[in-house]
Amino acid sequence: MIHPIPPGTRDVLPDEMRELRAITRGLRRTFEGADYGEVWTPSLEYEDVLRTGDDNAAGAGFRTFDEQGHVLALRSDMTIPIARVVATRYEAQTDPLRLCYFAHAYRAVKRGTGQQREFLQAGIELIGVEGPAGEAEVIALTLEALDGVGLARHRIGLGDGALYRTLLADYEVPEASLLERLAVRDLVGLERLVKGLGLPGEAEDVLLSLPEQRGGPEVLDRPIEALDGLRRLYAELESKGVADRVILDLGLVRMLGYYTGAVYEVYDPAVGFTLGGGGRYDDLIGRFGGGRPACGVALDVQRVHIAQAAEERMS
Amino acid sequence: MIHPIPPGTRDVLPDEMRELRAITRGLRRTFEGADYGEVWTPSLEYEDVLRTGDDNAAGAGFRTFDEQGHVLALRSDMTIPIARVVATRYEAQTDPLRLCYFAHAYRAVKRGTGQQREFLQAGIELIGVEGPAGEAEVIALTLEALDGVGLARHRIGLGDGALYRTLLADYEVPEASLLERLAVRDLVGLERLVKGLGLPGEAEDVLLSLPEQRGGPEVLDRPIEALDGLRRLYAELESKGVADRVILDLGLVRMLGYYTGAVYEVYDPAVGFTLGGGGRYDDLIGRFGGGRPACGVALDVQRVHIAQAAEERMS
Repeated sequence: MIHPIPPGTRDVLPDEMRELRAITRGLRRTFEGADYGEVWTPSLEYEDVLRTGDDNAAGAGFRTFDEQGHVLALRSDMTIPIARVVATRYEAQTDPLRLCYFAHAYRAVKRGTGQQREFLQAGIELIGVEGPAGEAEVIALTLEALDGVGLARHRIGLGDGALYRTLLADYEVPEASLLERLAVRDLVGLERLVKGLGLPGEAEDVLLSLPEQRGGPEVLDRPIEALDGLRRLYAELESKGVADRVILDLGLVRMLGYYTGAVYEVYDPAVGFTLGGGGRYDDLIGRFGGGRPACGVALDVQRVHIAQAAEERMS
Repeated sequence: MIHPIPPGTRDVLPDEMRELRAITRGLRRTFEGADYGEVWTPSLEYEDVLRTGDDNAAGAGFRTFDEQGHVLALRSDMTIPIARVVATRYEAQTDPLRLCYFAHAYRAVKRGTGQQREFLQAGIELIGVEGPAGEAEVIALTLEALDGVGLARHRIGLGDGALYRTLLADYEVPEASLLERLAVRDLVGLERLVKGLGLPGEAEDVLLSLPEQRGGPEVLDRPIEALDGLRRLYAELESKGVADRVILDLGLVRMLGYYTGAVYEVYDPAVGFTLGGGGRYDDLIGRFGGGRPACGVALDVQRVHIAQAAEERMS
């Protein structure tokens, strides 16, 4: 007798579960120690409400109907529901608000890709702190939280989700198709598009060479004004003593539509996938009510667990 | 701007979340201390697979389709998924298996009833221990786990889900409609049905008076063979020193179709609702593979939290 479970879902038995709980416990200790209070939101929400946050995010999940025929969707991340909570339950708060979460999110997956349909996320959201100060706090806390669960080799890849939009606006070039190529890291396609624009040599060179820039602070040496945001953030990270664990990556563009500034991904050289990511999303909360600047990060707990084991094997 | 969430779901903010986490942490400590290892199963399963466990349980949840057009359902409890896990992942295990879980379950609710659509359950399943020894272990551990999170007034209501089936078989009476009346505690409807059967006076009296019997061991005084199971269990509870916290309730019949013996509910006089319940389900695992006796209990964490607060107000 065989009783399958859907592809991309798993049964977790006690030995593994104990280790996953140790990870969430460790992450929660760091997050709460930095004054991030845990919140929970419903797994199922009205699809219309989720779409208010991001049109793609809602559509990627699972849909069903409630008893009144309203479309419900399983959340595909926690950032949009938390933006809703902040706008509706913390309307009057002007001080910075620090929230964290430990919850499953859901995505439709293609059969046979090995992608997870249901995955446990641990994350933080820092609301009401603008610019580099906010992003540096989130990045430093992410590094510290992963230290706290025994990782040693993890790094943050850091880019600027607004960089190309700013450059393209400076050069008065339509942005949509170029950003699409960047988002999937199709540098060949990008080159074809850029070369077809007939831009001055300097502009063409900037658009083609920046996405390949990856490394330490030397990546920011070029005297381009659009890099000022990253320069300020990098200085902030240096003053927090974590800059040496951050890899600047000017080609990094996160897929989700709501990022407006710094974007980052969490890597561990012991494994070939990202452990999580995040960024600044200053426009998202305003879609639900009183707008506020915000940034955050989400970690995939199962991937953190795999990285833990992989680091142990390497050491 | 209003951004509603579905009726029967909630946003949980940090103050409450901290208390809920303290409850799950306390319950987990007791469960793991008694060697119950935590498991996790997917929130979404194939509806056919859930229906293998119990036809009603699957239908009560939410349904959606995957990319191949298969019907997926949100789990409406954890007992059926764990029965699947036991049958498929612990096929060869003959020793007792002790599992626990902390997971959300989902049920369709009627608008305006105040019922929860999504609720966090904490529970245990004891597999491979027959009869009163198994049930007494689960009941005693339930009481201890709630002691451990600061409750003091909680009690277990204990009945026998097979009692009326046995009696009706003894009297050669068809059971379906009578059990239905009992399940909804419609004693007037039960009386009408029983009086229409034309049974001998003694049989009629047993069927009508037993469901009203509720209290201490005197409830078991009547020399009816069908009460032997509860008598053995009560003796076991006495030897564990917890019988004084158990209220025998011969009218207690749990709604779920898979219970085959003892059934119990968790009460606290500080609140007007049950905190959870469970029972023996010896046939369930066999529906997925190699059959094994089993019993368990599920607690509603949010209700335990409300009872905690209510007890504090009373003391």
